[in-house]
Amino acid sequence: MAAPRGARTPLTRVAIFGGTHGNELSGVLLARHWQEDGAEVQRPGLRVTPFISNPRAVHRGVRYVDRDLNRVFDPAHLGPEPPEDQPYEVEQAREIHRLFGAYDVILDLHNTTSNMGCTLILESSRDDVLIQMFRYIQGWRVSNKSWEGQAFLASHRDEEGEAGKGPGLRVGDIQRGISPGPGDLLVQVSLGPAGRLAFFQLGEQRREFPACSLEAYQVTGKVDYPRKANGEIAAVIHPSLQDRDWQPLKPGEPAFLTLDGTTIPFDGDGPVYPVFVNEAAYYEKGEAFAKTRKVTLTARRLDAAGAPREAPPQTRFPGDV
Amino acid sequence: MAAPRGARTPLTRVAIFGGTHGNELSGVLLARHWQEDGAEVQRPGLRVTPFISNPRAVHRGVRYVDRDLNRVFDPAHLGPEPPEDQPYEVEQAREIHRLFGAYDVILDLHNTTSNMGCTLILESSRDDVLIQMFRYIQGWRVSNKSWEGQAFLASHRDEEGEAGKGPGLRVGDIQRGISPGPGDLLVQVSLGPAGRLAFFQLGEQRREFPACSLEAYQVTGKVDYPRKANGEIAAVIHPSLQDRDWQPLKPGEPAFLTLDGTTIPFDGDGPVYPVFVNEAAYYEKGEAFAKTRKVTLTARRLDAAGAPREAPPQTRFPGDV
Repeated sequence: MAAPRGARTPLTRVAIFGGTHGNELSGVLLARHWQEDGAEVQRPGLRVTPFISNPRAVHRGVRYVDRDLNRVFDPAHLGPEPPEDQPYEVEQAREIHRLFGAYDVILDLHNTTSNMGCTLILESSRDDVLIQMFRYIQGWRVSNKSWEGQAFLASHRDEEGEAGKGPGLRVGDIQRGISPGPGDLLVQVSLGPAGRLAFFQLGEQRREFPACSLEAYQVTGKVDYPRKANGEIAAVIHPSLQDRDWQPLKPGEPAFLTLDGTTIPFDGDGPVYPVFVNEAAYYEKGEAFAKTRKVTLTARRLDAAGAPREAPPQTRFPGDV
Repeated sequence: MAAPRGARTPLTRVAIFGGTHGNELSGVLLARHWQEDGAEVQRPGLRVTPFISNPRAVHRGVRYVDRDLNRVFDPAHLGPEPPEDQPYEVEQAREIHRLFGAYDVILDLHNTTSNMGCTLILESSRDDVLIQMFRYIQGWRVSNKSWEGQAFLASHRDEEGEAGKGPGLRVGDIQRGISPGPGDLLVQVSLGPAGRLAFFQLGEQRREFPACSLEAYQVTGKVDYPRKANGEIAAVIHPSLQDRDWQPLKPGEPAFLTLDGTTIPFDGDGPVYPVFVNEAAYYEKGEAFAKTRKVTLTARRLDAAGAPREAPPQTRFPGDV
């Protein structure tokens, strides 16, 4: 649903989703807060809409009711023929698609139990505006503190980023404390594992931005827990890997520890940067951690109207899969 | 169900519960592991029974199905007249009561999202054997590492500890890594927030233990989140309180932060030691943190058969409520 690279119009409509996973409270609290008083996130020329994206799951305090909402934004579920007796989240995804499919940016606020700090999750490597936004956030300072966090590219292959629920970015665990400042793109506060919040304030998108590059981590695959013949988990994350998201993990280094105390080394062709290490919600998805590699994303210059004005530089994916 | 203080017989039957909360995986993995191979937890003269206490919640990966299992072990639910159409967990509590009501010790393994480290939760201040066990664990060393953790007394009033599901202790978040050693009471390994494990090995209960005292934290009350008129949470744990379990919190010090950025100070008569700070599962219980105070528990000398042989020293609760 994202406009083709280079044809982007200025940002006018922005949605902020909380509660896509009903038990991730940061976004729920913030979306409700901004629904009651939106002054904090309103900017001239921008229409900013806070939205509780999975209200039934929020009400029950669970990740989802029937299906993981974040896994049903695909053509099979959003196509013109609605399936009969569709699961609640499919119904909800179709409604969200109808309401927000034409929005320019969706900020989808999440929490994680992994030690990832603040993470901006980019759905596409080809969106000049979002890459510029990430770069801007990284350079942004409040009270002499700079933003600390990582950019994460959630698609294995570049074109995958164009699918999904549109021009979105997701925000993971918010860890570092920075006090709010007026008129900034991002205000980030630290509010603990279950209540970590991000204040996003979109602004300045009408000034000029020179061409830039952005260091990011691109997911290359996932690693499941070692399992017994009956499918049960046979080992857990090794203590030396726990809480070491974003740190290189080399083949042969400890990855898991069995309940008998046996270390299972990481089996890979080369070093990876693990993320979502021991994310509690991913046990059911068969994911002990995700493997990533470092990539450099590039964005073209944006003029004051938000549209790129130069020929696109090459976007580099070292060893692209 | 605990035997009266001083009349305790030697330990012969021990249960290890995993999955009392179905989404707390440490105990689930361990109980299953020991059900398959119990050699690690068997000791001469002891019958040790690992048990999945809420299998339906474990299967669904949720804390509970109908009711919090850990909140229905009371006379109203365990009495002789079973209510009709009882919730699943009430049915399960009655079955557990029938199977394990006469056991000497129940080790009930839990996880927490709070930064509490390893916590031994004692249900009564009057149980010589459990206090001796806690003291023994605290003095225990493996590979030149001593055990690091806190003892927590879960009853406001002393006599409350005699109710509940019997002579139990609970184990919270396991954080510090200590390698297994043979013949020890406790082996503790670090396996991450969602997979932290404790290996409990009951042994040596037939040697003599001199009278001892134990520093513990006794819960004195709980503090809810500030709320709006409609009941919704209006503020979250303040960054300066987050992760500061067991550290003193004085009246006037920051406790909460509203979404507007306003600090709400702790309103109390004196300093408390907060625990379960920002525990994710307690949002629904209206508990932002629990207040505790330091107390000294005492236990009489145990002879080699496990029974106390001396007159009980006074158990001191400074400022007991």
